[in-house]
Amino acid sequence: MPSRQSRLMEETYVRLNKHLGAKDLDIDLYRIVMEEQASVATEPTNVTYEEVQCPGTVQPAIWCLPQSASASHVILYLHGGGFISGSPSSHRKLAAHLAKRAGCRALIIDYRRAPEHQFPKQIEDVVATYTWLIQDMGFSSKRIALAGDSAGGNLTVSASLAVHNLGLEVPAAIAAFSPWFDMRTTGKSWQRNAKTDCLVLLEAMQGVIHTYVGESSLDNPCLDLLCTDLKGLPPMFLTSGTSEVLEDDAVLLAENARSHEIDVNLLLVEGMQHIWVLMAGNAPEADESLAQAASFIRSKMAI
Amino acid sequence: MPSRQSRLMEETYVRLNKHLGAKDLDIDLYRIVMEEQASVATEPTNVTYEEVQCPGTVQPAIWCLPQSASASHVILYLHGGGFISGSPSSHRKLAAHLAKRAGCRALIIDYRRAPEHQFPKQIEDVVATYTWLIQDMGFSSKRIALAGDSAGGNLTVSASLAVHNLGLEVPAAIAAFSPWFDMRTTGKSWQRNAKTDCLVLLEAMQGVIHTYVGESSLDNPCLDLLCTDLKGLPPMFLTSGTSEVLEDDAVLLAENARSHEIDVNLLLVEGMQHIWVLMAGNAPEADESLAQAASFIRSKMAI
Repeated sequence: MPSRQSRLMEETYVRLNKHLGAKDLDIDLYRIVMEEQASVATEPTNVTYEEVQCPGTVQPAIWCLPQSASASHVILYLHGGGFISGSPSSHRKLAAHLAKRAGCRALIIDYRRAPEHQFPKQIEDVVATYTWLIQDMGFSSKRIALAGDSAGGNLTVSASLAVHNLGLEVPAAIAAFSPWFDMRTTGKSWQRNAKTDCLVLLEAMQGVIHTYVGESSLDNPCLDLLCTDLKGLPPMFLTSGTSEVLEDDAVLLAENARSHEIDVNLLLVEGMQHIWVLMAGNAPEADESLAQAASFIRSKMAI
Repeated sequence: MPSRQSRLMEETYVRLNKHLGAKDLDIDLYRIVMEEQASVATEPTNVTYEEVQCPGTVQPAIWCLPQSASASHVILYLHGGGFISGSPSSHRKLAAHLAKRAGCRALIIDYRRAPEHQFPKQIEDVVATYTWLIQDMGFSSKRIALAGDSAGGNLTVSASLAVHNLGLEVPAAIAAFSPWFDMRTTGKSWQRNAKTDCLVLLEAMQGVIHTYVGESSLDNPCLDLLCTDLKGLPPMFLTSGTSEVLEDDAVLLAENARSHEIDVNLLLVEGMQHIWVLMAGNAPEADESLAQAASFIRSKMAI
């Protein structure tokens, strides 16, 4: 039974979808409305922030620096927003809550967004930042985790695959919240949860997919993550809510990853909406899911 | 000559005004768009945050806690937004930059907004928080400054007046950025700067005034701040930009305050848009104005 507090996510999505559903909504206003997702998280205490210009990003990235956290372990955080919206600002509090629980710092980057930039530019930006962390900032790959939500959850896996295919060492762990992997919208949760998901609509999603994918083939391994060979990727923590149409994205990715001998933690949380972890500090389900992800990350990075 | 960086404010206002000017824009979307003002400030380093429920506010207030700052001096920060929009979130970075420069903490409150709540509810909320700071949190009035921008700049003076009229000790200082005082839109800058102000439009402002004032008389001393007796109010730092239609609001308030023997620092900054201090960390004019306000506050609060 979802907590009373967790209704905040539903109420917020119903409110935002009123604006997002407007005819001829322009991309700038779409992005402004999506920033409002940030409103459901509390300010985490004892965390400072610092902007930094790093490669492969447009606007500065934001360092989230929990006091007394390890300075040699980092979560590279990849925000959601369908590859077309979201920013370090919209996900600052979420990433800071996660980093604080994990006992390390987080870096949220402003990867290039569609439609101005399409696949695989987003992946290239993550790979560029990942190699910058290792080569310029001196982090060991064993002390880097990739974490993200929704489209950012996709990037945790697709960018790790790209890193692996380049012959580089993969990160120590992946944590993906309400990740979106299924570019063919074949998951049964698209039907099963169509009436309970308060944000994601099939028709809108098909537009978003086209905007991201462009002319690329869906058979490209970095787009076909539910079927492609994931061998060599790091252990994964995957979580989705049972009220969201993307629920099966996490389930199907977990199946594919396990078939390639990857250690997967799959957590399905009853009655939760898309990216319920945004409610960090405000809903017990968000805090519990973040605590489990943080515990997974701590263990894999040996913090 | 305004800096190249300060064009960010103009560009942002032109962008936002496209959305704000839409026919039948609903109040929720208006508020969401206005939150985007926050995008022009950088994240200040070495500041932590903490939400707190205090009297006279809807959503929690945010404490901005610069590291190594005095814990016994506080800036009570009152955000702008025409009394109908703005929030602790939209002004978090601005208030934190100011507090950090002043060497104290800041508290940004979520006073009730119009049209749901009209004058003088906003003033009552500020007074309630001010007395809470003194009676419950143990701050001395000599170590409290009121600071704010635009409508929040109005509240720095109107709430101080209300405090004085209640026979309470007034705060140690007032700092107002692009304050809005003139409910009759009589200032000559309404004409003089009509072509250079990228945000504030006369017709829209008249709607905002009506929304705030409701059925109250403009002769009410707390609405008639350009003419009312301000004797007994604390020293004031007032600043406005020479490109904004509200430029004369600061000038006329300064005249009125000086005629009542109040110590006023008036700073007019060449070519600046409404609330240019929002660009803290991104434009030299913003940083310089904040440095001057902080220096004034430090001196009056003896930090």
